[in-house]
Amino acid sequence: MDQPVGLYYTEQHSPALRFNYKVKEVIFSGKTAFQKVDIVHLDAYQKTLFLDGKIQSALVDEYIFHESLVHPALFTHPSPERVLIAGGGEGATLREALKHGVKEVTMVDIDGELVELCKTHLPEWHQGAFEDPRTRLVYGDARRFIFETDGTYDVILSDLTEPLEEGPSQFLFTEEFYRKARERLSEDGIIAIQSASGDPLYADFVASIVKTLEGIFPVVRVCWAFTFSFSMPWVFTIASKRYDPLEIREKEVEERMASRGISGLRYYSPEMHRAMFVLPPYLKEILKKGRVLTDRDPYVYPE
Amino acid sequence: MDQPVGLYYTEQHSPALRFNYKVKEVIFSGKTAFQKVDIVHLDAYQKTLFLDGKIQSALVDEYIFHESLVHPALFTHPSPERVLIAGGGEGATLREALKHGVKEVTMVDIDGELVELCKTHLPEWHQGAFEDPRTRLVYGDARRFIFETDGTYDVILSDLTEPLEEGPSQFLFTEEFYRKARERLSEDGIIAIQSASGDPLYADFVASIVKTLEGIFPVVRVCWAFTFSFSMPWVFTIASKRYDPLEIREKEVEERMASRGISGLRYYSPEMHRAMFVLPPYLKEILKKGRVLTDRDPYVYPE
Amino acid sequence: MDQPVGLYYTEQHSPALRFNYKVKEVIFSGKTAFQKVDIVHLDAYQKTLFLDGKIQSALVDEYIFHESLVHPALFTHPSPERVLIAGGGEGATLREALKHGVKEVTMVDIDGELVELCKTHLPEWHQGAFEDPRTRLVYGDARRFIFETDGTYDVILSDLTEPLEEGPSQFLFTEEFYRKARERLSEDGIIAIQSASGDPLYADFVASIVKTLEGIFPVVRVCWAFTFSFSMPWVFTIASKRYDPLEIREKEVEERMASRGISGLRYYSPEMHRAMFVLPPYLKEILKKGRVLTDRDPYVYPE
Amino acid sequence: MDQPVGLYYTEQHSPALRFNYKVKEVIFSGKTAFQKVDIVHLDAYQKTLFLDGKIQSALVDEYIFHESLVHPALFTHPSPERVLIAGGGEGATLREALKHGVKEVTMVDIDGELVELCKTHLPEWHQGAFEDPRTRLVYGDARRFIFETDGTYDVILSDLTEPLEEGPSQFLFTEEFYRKARERLSEDGIIAIQSASGDPLYADFVASIVKTLEGIFPVVRVCWAFTFSFSMPWVFTIASKRYDPLEIREKEVEERMASRGISGLRYYSPEMHRAMFVLPPYLKEILKKGRVLTDRDPYVYPE
Repeated sequence: MDQPVGLYYTEQHSPALRFNYKVKEVIFSGKTAFQKVDIVHLDAYQKTLFLDGKIQSALVDEYIFHESLVHPALFTHPSPERVLIAGGGEGATLREALKHGVKEVTMVDIDGELVELCKTHLPEWHQGAFEDPRTRLVYGDARRFIFETDGTYDVILSDLTEPLEEGPSQFLFTEEFYRKARERLSEDGIIAIQSASGDPLYADFVASIVKTLEGIFPVVRVCWAFTFSFSMPWVFTIASKRYDPLEIREKEVEERMASRGISGLRYYSPEMHRAMFVLPPYLKEILKKGRVLTDRDPYVYPE
Repeated sequence: MDQPVGLYYTEQHSPALRFNYKVKEVIFSGKTAFQKVDIVHLDAYQKTLFLDGKIQSALVDEYIFHESLVHPALFTHPSPERVLIAGGGEGATLREALKHGVKEVTMVDIDGELVELCKTHLPEWHQGAFEDPRTRLVYGDARRFIFETDGTYDVILSDLTEPLEEGPSQFLFTEEFYRKARERLSEDGIIAIQSASGDPLYADFVASIVKTLEGIFPVVRVCWAFTFSFSMPWVFTIASKRYDPLEIREKEVEERMASRGISGLRYYSPEMHRAMFVLPPYLKEILKKGRVLTDRDPYVYPE
Repeated sequence: MDQPVGLYYTEQHSPALRFNYKVKEVIFSGKTAFQKVDIVHLDAYQKTLFLDGKIQSALVDEYIFHESLVHPALFTHPSPERVLIAGGGEGATLREALKHGVKEVTMVDIDGELVELCKTHLPEWHQGAFEDPRTRLVYGDARRFIFETDGTYDVILSDLTEPLEEGPSQFLFTEEFYRKARERLSEDGIIAIQSASGDPLYADFVASIVKTLEGIFPVVRVCWAFTFSFSMPWVFTIASKRYDPLEIREKEVEERMASRGISGLRYYSPEMHRAMFVLPPYLKEILKKGRVLTDRDPYVYPE
Repeated sequence: MDQPVGLYYTEQHSPALRFNYKVKEVIFSGKTAFQKVDIVHLDAYQKTLFLDGKIQSALVDEYIFHESLVHPALFTHPSPERVLIAGGGEGATLREALKHGVKEVTMVDIDGELVELCKTHLPEWHQGAFEDPRTRLVYGDARRFIFETDGTYDVILSDLTEPLEEGPSQFLFTEEFYRKARERLSEDGIIAIQSASGDPLYADFVASIVKTLEGIFPVVRVCWAFTFSFSMPWVFTIASKRYDPLEIREKEVEERMASRGISGLRYYSPEMHRAMFVLPPYLKEILKKGRVLTDRDPYVYPE
């Protein structure tokens, strides 16, 4: 089937911005118990996943997001063996984590139907990661999992959607949650958190994540990447019990990359490791202004 | 498959107006030698045909257009036997013409691939009309057909796209063409022409069709209908050698309707027959301002 | 100031349709106690009034709406002296009513600020009608006015916005209201009501207005017009104690037009009078399906 | 005046992407001999300049672009005295250059009318820079200026629009132009060039700028920044006769910043200096694929 002349996917990004993406083909559209799932081939970004009409991940640059979430944390750890992913639907966070010679990666996503759809429709994302014998896939609430498990993890990767009002992520960015996460980390454990936009207007979310984590972890750092298909710079927060990502020299990343047999990355690199943590003054200024997020007063992401 | 959240079909109706139609489903998209064909299910208008990105016909009210093109002319003729359709891709003009107990309807459409696509994808339009033994389907240029045929017709129905620059209809609205059409009409023959919008701004096209026909036929009349999915009132020109649609009384239409066994029309009716020819002063004013269209100086419809 | 390249006014007409109108100039934007008022010069429709982001009236064809609301009723009445307008903000309904040689026109609009804005910014609509000594302008709720006044009127013109949920028109389309309106009409009085769209999909509103009025008035009729800038055919309901608009012959309208000194109308005319009341079968079918609207169960217009 | 409900500025960013920006107010719209100029207050980006309907600079983050164009080059030079700006309409490049204690900044912009409009309407950009006694403003073709002047410059800043077909910048990105620019640079001179998007899809322009400069200058480097309002990462090419921006240590930048009395920057900083030149593997890969741009075969930027 050809591409229709006038077919667009329209995303009301915010009240101030509406994006119209020219559509080549609608690949899938359906609904899970939690969200509306559209998989569409866009002229601008190739195959793209939308949840509830909001862009989540595009083939053209999904690696920028996923490499930036996973590798700064995992290369900071000298020998990660057990990794926990909170969320992570498409399987690309899993894919990147598995590259580190780990023993086990547990992925806990509340929306099993979504994961099954990604297995079928997004092979470019997971690339078989779900079939890896080291993968342990759990369909359930990541908060409940963290509160109930007695497992211990070297790295936790928080790959969750933003905490929309009444959305499933509301209480996965609070002090209570992060305290429990710290308990589940090994003594030299690290948590990395996708923290949304780092632009001059909307970076108060990451500021509050940082403020919240600073009361709990001795080391809290922010790195960023330019995720083209989000039209925004994107930030990631790393909190750590012992290792500081800023103290890992380029040489060390290079050696770990070699010893773990990792090659072919497209955004992260030994020299990028350090550069990603260098933030401009405007962003450092914003990061000072966060507040502690709690279950009683969580962050509500504007729709 | 569900309906994607943000899927729209965008039509640049004119430089001044852009319409976004919410899309339920893309049914077909392809290309013929002449035009891009999109068949899309719209929330607003149900199944809808777009040619080169411009709306052509929507299930919700295709009958308004097709009944208004066919019945005023065919009920004006006391005994139509042979009908010629110039254009008419979807088969709905054919469908309505066949209701009149005619012996033969010849439909000449330049875009055979389009007609085949309509056969497959638009059964609600043709409703089997292409299979009627009285139908004679010709894939070719209607102008050439009219110039070369030696057939004689009681009614000619011009169901052509607007004459876009370099488009296939450019020379099917000119004096030269209409003179030949008159030659191919029987002594009491009638021609009906879809003549685009009758709104206060863009009605100069119909004005020129009228002016052109007035030099050739003794009777020239304009009727109109409210075609919802075009967002415009639509006009139709009727030129006739003998019978005047204004002289057919309601009673006569009723009798012809009964004797021809026609029922179930949704827009045209005996009382509508007369009312459709009553035009408001603004439109009568515009109709005075046409010019004679010729092969050297045809009408070029603004894109 | 020039026209900006990419400036559009976007109207979410319904969930299924979004219109983008190219903007030449923003003339005014403000807020009254009741609604958001935007007056914008559109390339497509010239000067245009939007209330709460919905198109209300455009210079290119406001006369189609206003002539169709006013003249079928006022020409049906042999000697209208006192007219009441419910709503009518822009002053164009007033303008048309004053043409009939009446003694007094009372206009009751709840939004005095809006009327003042129209006085300033829409002179093409009112054309001085507010200054006419026969005009009596009341800023207040039309329902309350009808319930409390002891005035008697030959014609009532209901020129109200559609009854949106919690909007000011909610209880101005109910049985209770129309009964009071009948009481305020003289013995041969007539009420005409703008009744929204007459298209195949959304005409259930007019159907319910008709059903409601049929229990109250001996004569109930529907006429329609094609309001280009609304992208829809528009319907008007007329209810009458004695005179039937269908019984007024063309000749009679002509004579009344002459004796009242009315000329220069652009949509309504003696021959249009009758034609406007001829409805197509699809619309007659829809008109059968209304329900009686009451204060307890009013019509809620979909947004 | 209030903000209209449905007012948007629509930018057809590419055939694949259309952006709709909610408009608070149209500040100015006009036309120069070279281009259409719209200055609009957007909800998303505050005051914003559009040229020919394409976003150029927004108040919310103009500093990211201008600091990234100016400071990496000017801090790399130990004692810049004479600076030449090719283009630079808004005056913000001039503003940043003047901070470096230079003796003279010559700005050559072909569109004098545009510069005058920026003087009036964009004070937040120039902040009085046009009034600085060290500023020399020339309205003329920057290519012709470079070919004809006998001046010598320590730093040249190329702040030009992308080379659209038949646009004024077509021959300001070619080998011939850059050879002349080298001649006009002092022996330790540096040229910095805004080089458009650094995203995974459209970075071939910067690749060709790099390839072209590598045949002319011993040092060629690329840095990037996250320009939020362009929805893209943005790249800048620096070519130098002697000094290498990569060899300037953070400490050195700090000292130069202090000695030149520069403070209050919002994007550039001593530590950002080095980080901005670290590029991800995908971009390094693209940078290998450029071609030499010549007057006979210049780059034509896709519209």
